[in-house]
Amino acid sequence: MPRPLQPPRGMRDFLPEEMIIRQQILEKVKTVFETFGFQPLETPAIENWEVLSAKGAGGEEILKETYNFKDLGGRRVGLRYDLTVPLARVVASTPNLTLPFKRYQIQNVWRYGDVAKGRFREFLQADIDTIGAESMLADAEVVACAIATFSSLGFKEFMVRVNNRKILSALIKYAGVEDDKIVDAFRAIDKLDKVGEKGVEKELLDRGISTNVAKRIMEFIKIAGEPEAVLKKAEKFVTGIKEGEEGIAELKQFVAYLVDMKVEPKFKIDLSLARGLDYYTGPIFEVFAAEGVGSVAGGGRYDKMIGLFSGRDIPATGISLGIERIIEVIKQRKMIEPTKTKVKAFIASVNEQVRTNAIGLAQKLRQSGVPVDFDLKNRVLTRQLEYADALGIPLVVIVGSKELEKGVVKVRDMKKREETEVKIFELVNLLNRY
Amino acid sequence: MPRPLQPPRGMRDFLPEEMIIRQQILEKVKTVFETFGFQPLETPAIENWEVLSAKGAGGEEILKETYNFKDLGGRRVGLRYDLTVPLARVVASTPNLTLPFKRYQIQNVWRYGDVAKGRFREFLQADIDTIGAESMLADAEVVACAIATFSSLGFKEFMVRVNNRKILSALIKYAGVEDDKIVDAFRAIDKLDKVGEKGVEKELLDRGISTNVAKRIMEFIKIAGEPEAVLKKAEKFVTGIKEGEEGIAELKQFVAYLVDMKVEPKFKIDLSLARGLDYYTGPIFEVFAAEGVGSVAGGGRYDKMIGLFSGRDIPATGISLGIERIIEVIKQRKMIEPTKTKVKAFIASVNEQVRTNAIGLAQKLRQSGVPVDFDLKNRVLTRQLEYADALGIPLVVIVGSKELEKGVVKVRDMKKREETEVKIFELVNLLNRY
Repeated sequence: MPRPLQPPRGMRDFLPEEMIIRQQILEKVKTVFETFGFQPLETPAIENWEVLSAKGAGGEEILKETYNFKDLGGRRVGLRYDLTVPLARVVASTPNLTLPFKRYQIQNVWRYGDVAKGRFREFLQADIDTIGAESMLADAEVVACAIATFSSLGFKEFMVRVNNRKILSALIKYAGVEDDKIVDAFRAIDKLDKVGEKGVEKELLDRGISTNVAKRIMEFIKIAGEPEAVLKKAEKFVTGIKEGEEGIAELKQFVAYLVDMKVEPKFKIDLSLARGLDYYTGPIFEVFAAEGVGSVAGGGRYDKMIGLFSGRDIPATGISLGIERIIEVIKQRKMIEPTKTKVKAFIASVNEQVRTNAIGLAQKLRQSGVPVDFDLKNRVLTRQLEYADALGIPLVVIVGSKELEKGVVKVRDMKKREETEVKIFELVNLLNRY
Repeated sequence: MPRPLQPPRGMRDFLPEEMIIRQQILEKVKTVFETFGFQPLETPAIENWEVLSAKGAGGEEILKETYNFKDLGGRRVGLRYDLTVPLARVVASTPNLTLPFKRYQIQNVWRYGDVAKGRFREFLQADIDTIGAESMLADAEVVACAIATFSSLGFKEFMVRVNNRKILSALIKYAGVEDDKIVDAFRAIDKLDKVGEKGVEKELLDRGISTNVAKRIMEFIKIAGEPEAVLKKAEKFVTGIKEGEEGIAELKQFVAYLVDMKVEPKFKIDLSLARGLDYYTGPIFEVFAAEGVGSVAGGGRYDKMIGLFSGRDIPATGISLGIERIIEVIKQRKMIEPTKTKVKAFIASVNEQVRTNAIGLAQKLRQSGVPVDFDLKNRVLTRQLEYADALGIPLVVIVGSKELEKGVVKVRDMKKREETEVKIFELVNLLNRY
């Protein structure tokens, strides 16, 4: 007997009740993505190691958690850890793609990380990206689409935390960080939420940044308050640094486009937002849902990644929805009523003699598109009712010989425990209405 | 620059046009599966090696093609090669499952096999299985569901080739094959289609079966003709062998239930049908679509597999649809009109001044559920039209200042090259009708 019978640690089986709710959520997500003009893309689970480990792709931290192995032909491959790197590869290898190319991708990714509550080693990502548009309109659109998606799932208030790598980079340079320490500074700053100001300062020093420089960095990452006030202060710091001025202008445009699109979430300009990944080049954003839900999506602009694959830079921006988290919140808060089955009615037979009639009736209903089930075990009526109840099937159609002669069946509502007589030819309509 | 930019050999990227057709097909498949009362299940891509390599699971031939490796914790795991073994594991590890349990599963599997035309190393399987029902009604139902699925996809005539492992086993014993050579005999017989009668006979001898025994085997696998005639001849051979008599009775019941369900495909009882896998214990079946499409689904009963995992046998039967093959045929025969995009209209602006209006209008349409796109690159009208055309968007809504004053827009049909003036408030209705 092979043990263990559980899936590998950090991976999950999804039984029907769970699958039904996941499918409902993903259906809504897809619908909104498509309404915003994003088209579906899928890529293989397995990628060549050269692609996954390309400079400027996921980066070292992610590679440490990447499943990788030699295939049976001896070639090193790995399982995809995100949907952005495969997208960049696809774009780089499809020179005749019409640009801008707007795609959505909803697929599993694999990371061998710590398995804690709500963290898995196989999990779903849902990304939308726009390739080939420099305008901040593209950035604003992916954020608007993410917010519309969450709205359609029943979330109501949103806050968008934004920054721009260009501002951050200008500020860091302004503070006096040397070029080879810039990524270190990003990484340290990014931990503000987790480790607090003291923690960031310590990390900066640990990473070899001098006390004075660290002090200056701390000065601007603490800037907070109303978006306009924050922007003004940041502007002061970066005036005269081209990169910083560009970043400020982009940030303003980004916000203005969201207003044009009638998407007016609360904004928080957060100069400490760095979002780990090295590949961001412009605006970076995180979407928060109100009422303690927390971060639900994050992304940004990465104008240099496709060029790393093809040798020709193509602007790109996108956002990744924290779909597993969202599914958890929806389940916990019962924002969607869970259903155990999609079967509308169980067609029961009162005895052996009418079994063939019950099967025939079930098939007729199925041909009309009504999902129904019938007894596969030759059970007595009581057992059939118990089975339908255990599966959560809402109605049982009871087929008996006397009723058949009259052209009727009994329909039992399993919740109300009520039975009514229904003409067989009216059954399809009745069940479709239910 | 990382090379190659292509996915690993035998794996595919699915760009939007391809994805849209795959989604359409899978949506239909799921709908029929659910109409027949099958509920969704998903399992992880990665399984523990003990599960994949369990005795009585996929078997040696498949294991040779199974991606397997040590995970970062040093545990041997592999990628699933089918959907039956994971199902058996789930059932074995879920003791409180309500039986019969009817599930469908549509997920990728991975096999490192020869990459020939139409064979891939990552490919989709679509399976339906019923766990916990001994009755041939369950076997008939999965075949009926497969046929209904193909019907809904536009296929019309079907032939079901059936056999029963019990008959085959009885015949092989009757022929004088020793117990330890039975699987060898199955394997040899299974190749009849590929290698012909001479080939099977040679293979039997090669596998150490004596000339006389091989002759007797050849005698009955050649039996062909009308189902009733074949059954009669087979009955003669197996009379007195309990297993064989059971097999004949099951076969008759299986066919009778398909008739009860008003599914009356052509039948071919084929005593040479063995279907490679060792785990079949009762009826085995293959569905063929007419007009040269060939085999589109296959399966059978495997009453002993779950017991190998849990120590407690639970009857099981199922069928696997050759979904990749079906998708290929549908595409080749243009049974579904390919669409390049799901976007219904592109909202173009005639100049910079009305861009915000175009964006606002697009957002209003999106909020009403109409999939639309707008210009992200600040292009002149001609370029916007070219872009919409390249993407295959059927309509362009042209927003101009003069028209806006009148509360109208121009709607251009890209195929007919016709423009009409439409009141803005009528636009949602018009586009929804399109």
